[in-house]
Amino acid sequence: MATGRDSADDARTSSTVRSDPARAVAFSDAIIAIVITLLVLDLRPPDTEPGGLLPALLDEWPTYLAYAGSYVYLAVIWLNHKAAFTRIREMDRGLQWANLGILATLALVPWPTAVVAETARTGDLTNERVAVALYALVGALMCSSWLVFFAYLARHPDLTKQEVDDAYFARERPRAFIGVVLYLVAGMAGVFIHPLVASAIFLLLPAFYGLTSHGHDQRPALAGPGVGGGA
Amino acid sequence: MATGRDSADDARTSSTVRSDPARAVAFSDAIIAIVITLLVLDLRPPDTEPGGLLPALLDEWPTYLAYAGSYVYLAVIWLNHKAAFTRIREMDRGLQWANLGILATLALVPWPTAVVAETARTGDLTNERVAVALYALVGALMCSSWLVFFAYLARHPDLTKQEVDDAYFARERPRAFIGVVLYLVAGMAGVFIHPLVASAIFLLLPAFYGLTSHGHDQRPALAGPGVGGGA
Amino acid sequence: MATGRDSADDARTSSTVRSDPARAVAFSDAIIAIVITLLVLDLRPPDTEPGGLLPALLDEWPTYLAYAGSYVYLAVIWLNHKAAFTRIREMDRGLQWANLGILATLALVPWPTAVVAETARTGDLTNERVAVALYALVGALMCSSWLVFFAYLARHPDLTKQEVDDAYFARERPRAFIGVVLYLVAGMAGVFIHPLVASAIFLLLPAFYGLTSHGHDQRPALAGPGVGGGA
Amino acid sequence: MATGRDSADDARTSSTVRSDPARAVAFSDAIIAIVITLLVLDLRPPDTEPGGLLPALLDEWPTYLAYAGSYVYLAVIWLNHKAAFTRIREMDRGLQWANLGILATLALVPWPTAVVAETARTGDLTNERVAVALYALVGALMCSSWLVFFAYLARHPDLTKQEVDDAYFARERPRAFIGVVLYLVAGMAGVFIHPLVASAIFLLLPAFYGLTSHGHDQRPALAGPGVGGGA
Repeated sequence: MATGRDSADDARTSSTVRSDPARAVAFSDAIIAIVITLLVLDLRPPDTEPGGLLPALLDEWPTYLAYAGSYVYLAVIWLNHKAAFTRIREMDRGLQWANLGILATLALVPWPTAVVAETARTGDLTNERVAVALYALVGALMCSSWLVFFAYLARHPDLTKQEVDDAYFARERPRAFIGVVLYLVAGMAGVFIHPLVASAIFLLLPAFYGLTSHGHDQRPALAGPGVGGGA
Repeated sequence: MATGRDSADDARTSSTVRSDPARAVAFSDAIIAIVITLLVLDLRPPDTEPGGLLPALLDEWPTYLAYAGSYVYLAVIWLNHKAAFTRIREMDRGLQWANLGILATLALVPWPTAVVAETARTGDLTNERVAVALYALVGALMCSSWLVFFAYLARHPDLTKQEVDDAYFARERPRAFIGVVLYLVAGMAGVFIHPLVASAIFLLLPAFYGLTSHGHDQRPALAGPGVGGGA
Repeated sequence: MATGRDSADDARTSSTVRSDPARAVAFSDAIIAIVITLLVLDLRPPDTEPGGLLPALLDEWPTYLAYAGSYVYLAVIWLNHKAAFTRIREMDRGLQWANLGILATLALVPWPTAVVAETARTGDLTNERVAVALYALVGALMCSSWLVFFAYLARHPDLTKQEVDDAYFARERPRAFIGVVLYLVAGMAGVFIHPLVASAIFLLLPAFYGLTSHGHDQRPALAGPGVGGGA
Repeated sequence: MATGRDSADDARTSSTVRSDPARAVAFSDAIIAIVITLLVLDLRPPDTEPGGLLPALLDEWPTYLAYAGSYVYLAVIWLNHKAAFTRIREMDRGLQWANLGILATLALVPWPTAVVAETARTGDLTNERVAVALYALVGALMCSSWLVFFAYLARHPDLTKQEVDDAYFARERPRAFIGVVLYLVAGMAGVFIHPLVASAIFLLLPAFYGLTSHGHDQRPALAGPGVGGGA
């Protein structure tokens, strides 16, 4: 989908090319678009008897909340993915696999979302505890995949664009690590205190990442053709 | 998917770059393509007994009408999205979220479409009233998200291309606002008069937006390489 | 997805720009990719008792044939769509809607495919007649949408690239018209003779279009940068 | 999605253009993204009674393994597809169909994956043998489609970029052929020894292809604008 044009241009004018991120960016965009859309498309007409549609729709409010939360979550991830890739000049096999790891955990998100929505509807407390623990686990996996991604980039400054501060991706690591911890804490709170505590943290976490993000796109060091920048 | 090449080129030759809309355009195209396709793919072979396929297929006519209406609706939205983005030079976080809001409401459309089609088939009047009210609500939400989008652009003329009239997006706001009102009126007509009245308005509204659109693509002020234009 | 780069470049260097086809090409590619993939993904594990998987899989052969046929059909359509767009320089609203019409009918294809596969499995002759008639109707609709598309381009030579023969799209019309006729004949043969006759024609028609296609991509009149050509 | 920009640029500056691979690359990316995503999205909340969610989730471990294996498989295929296309300068009809053959077999993968996961859950040995045989068959088909693709490129060195060694694609053929053999051997081991033997080979094969791959992206012969290279 996207083209990562600018990074492509930068890559070409710079010395050695390992692999232009354009196709990886486009592939990632396609996957994120599919996941975020199918999440919403998972809303189905409820089975109802005559006159029962309104209460059936209203009863589904935990589903709406779960999907809204996951939509915002995935939107934040996409914005951060975009911001990260404006700083990447070229990719090697390791970075490709780190990115594929992010995409794999990201594609998992609708699954615990559906499990949480399903159990919230049936209202069995044991199942709800298990469901939020599963959601927390996938959330922690997701943050771990970003941790791997950032750590890889921090160890390979040659893959980033010239104008990017070498410590940039090293500084991103703690944020991802905090995410792993917070999701695990949320999961334990959901199991040992109450599933609603976990759900509240799940809704707040993406907001936290959206707001604290250093993840504005990379601005070009110089404004002019050939330097380009924020894709 | 799409590349928004021209806007990308414009952005690069212009002074400061916040964020090139190319990846947002591509991401939006992917999401709209998925939603519009899955809408049609929702048509399934009906369950039938021997010899019962023809009446079963004919009985589904409200489904066909509902899907045709939503297809045209989403096609009009895509054309307007395209027309709007030919005027956008760069995006900031606020505009990204305004666009993500449009995509979220747009991805909701198949849901009330399926609910309306389902209730039209079973023919319970109370459920039909609720279904058209739900469709009207989603339609109003969709128009509201455009209202936010246009209002944001009207307040940030620095995000649009140089050759775009500063008042352009301000002039688009009333059209989106009328949409909010008309969908709410349609919903109330569906509840208090008859669902068919609402359905008729639902089918007419996209036609209205398709025809009254100022939304032809932006033409370049000057024709020549580097000025480019209508993407 | 795709970029239609070359046509974009051509369009920019040529005089007046109405609307660059790049985003329409990308949007079309996304929709065709979704339809062709979901067609194949419709294959599901059969419900079986212990030891019954092998006969259950073998019993589904009409399904495999139906999906293989529709895959080839959609692949031929994609190649022809690609070939047509290498000749298009710019798009106006009418051409956008003609293209959206093609995409709408194309997205319908999995529906009659599933109906034909379903009825072939259950083996009720009346339903099979109706199913092939439905497939024929959608096939005829599809060819009609191409007829509209070609006729529009034939009447608007200013939308095609300079080096394209003005009569090119006029010459494509009879092929689309023959398709409409052949699908209707196949449908009638399926109803009045036997569904297998229709199925045979359905499998042969895409092969016919694949082989008789003038639809090789447009070659550039001159080979050199800026003239580009076959996208 | 992706743009294959570099190959497009190379193609343009080189002599005769048959067909720029950009749109085929984008189309392939879209299809692979859809298949790999829907594979993961196939995970559904299990049907459970009160308190039964945890054991129900744990019972599904063969499903998780099957999907993880297929995800890695498809990721390796995408990387190899990307590596192959960095060497392709232009495409003719034959190469388009060879690529469409790869996409068709690739889109089949979720189907035997679901069949294997389903039978592993129900635990009937006869069905499991049939399921791994089906998976092996699709795997062999997939490798055959690559064999055809490589053989076609080996016979048409004019379709590859100038700087690509003429024997490159000829050297890729044995690897694809070994894949065909290994999948068939795995299938037979699954039928005549035990399904677990086949499953182990299925999980090892993509790892083997990922590791032995010559498939790093093509580096440019010269580093500089206009020569570009590894897309």
